[in-house]
Amino acid sequence: MSRTVSSKPKTVRATASPKPVEREGRPPIEAIRTAAFKQFAERGYPVVTVRDIMRACGLTQGALYNHFKSKDELLHDIIASTQAELERLCQHAVAEAGDDPRAQLAAFVRVYVVRHCRMRIEALVANREIGWLDAERLADIRRSRRVIRDILVAILTRGVEEDVFDPPQIDGRRELIAQAMALLDQCTHVSMWYAPGRRLSEEQMAKLYADIALRSVGAKPATV
Amino acid sequence: MSRTVSSKPKTVRATASPKPVEREGRPPIEAIRTAAFKQFAERGYPVVTVRDIMRACGLTQGALYNHFKSKDELLHDIIASTQAELERLCQHAVAEAGDDPRAQLAAFVRVYVVRHCRMRIEALVANREIGWLDAERLADIRRSRRVIRDILVAILTRGVEEDVFDPPQIDGRRELIAQAMALLDQCTHVSMWYAPGRRLSEEQMAKLYADIALRSVGAKPATV
Repeated sequence: MSRTVSSKPKTVRATASPKPVEREGRPPIEAIRTAAFKQFAERGYPVVTVRDIMRACGLTQGALYNHFKSKDELLHDIIASTQAELERLCQHAVAEAGDDPRAQLAAFVRVYVVRHCRMRIEALVANREIGWLDAERLADIRRSRRVIRDILVAILTRGVEEDVFDPPQIDGRRELIAQAMALLDQCTHVSMWYAPGRRLSEEQMAKLYADIALRSVGAKPATV
Repeated sequence: MSRTVSSKPKTVRATASPKPVEREGRPPIEAIRTAAFKQFAERGYPVVTVRDIMRACGLTQGALYNHFKSKDELLHDIIASTQAELERLCQHAVAEAGDDPRAQLAAFVRVYVVRHCRMRIEALVANREIGWLDAERLADIRRSRRVIRDILVAILTRGVEEDVFDPPQIDGRRELIAQAMALLDQCTHVSMWYAPGRRLSEEQMAKLYADIALRSVGAKPATV
């Protein structure tokens, strides 16, 4: 699973210099996305202009409008594309994990945490700036987030049905959606404090969070 | 403990009209804070001006400068004051909870979650806009956050020493700071999705999250 994550390392943080990107052999759309993430992260969506982004990646304003009709469309694109990749990674991890909901939950959390340890700028922009999207685009991102949440809810539901999870009951009810949200919030926000090269490696973070997740849903020991 | 939280309900969301606040008998500084939270939440710190805030609460620009030298100082003030109140509530909850680290952890989580279910605008601004503070003010808020984190780390440490907690070990080490961060992230971000009057009450959220927290640190059953 960690191979799944590392197989497609994004080079988002690699573009610091404002050289024309064509020379680097990268498609302009990738350069625009990279510059947009960086500008939005550093200065905030409301004050960044289309001109700022184009200047940062050495393209003309017209070149952006070949790809995006507006700054709003660009913000939606960069959030939606990282979100789609996250969705793909989570689905793949769960599909590869076999039938046991415990293994599926662990696989989901591991891939999700590694990604958020790594894609910190993208996560910052996606979480801090999402509120600026117009209603329709916001709804689109929320739909995608709900897909990811529901992968998790499905794992928890199966785990309860198969009697391998025993999550908290509040006033006699299990609250699997709230439980899934709690897990996702926990895993998403490693992006805000995780520092590579300090005490914990990405892999150790993944292990820790998977262990916490299994405990929080009352996973029973696997009988091997 | 829920009394502690509800004893001082803030009226932050109550001020929609731009009447001069003096007429409502509230001190101007409170009106400024309320308007600042609302403006920063709705439009984002980078684009809101001091003039916008004063207009929103019906005061003159000069009146703000009686209290705050700059927009940056105002942002710091509103984050720092809610943060200080959170710190006070957590300390009080733990102090009232008796000696058992399990009861202390549950009390901490309950008060923290109820507060974040309630103070959603304040949490949004504190988390989304904090990055705009200048270095010294940012460091000040981070210090206060670390105080809260360390209350939690101290509870976990005592729980391990007294053998009532058995948290995950990663490669043979307990990671109590990371574990505390995971708990805090989980509890903080209820503010982003909790909707009053829907499926779960604040009290049920508090119960659910306290249960999850106790499970995640491997709390042993209390022998009553």
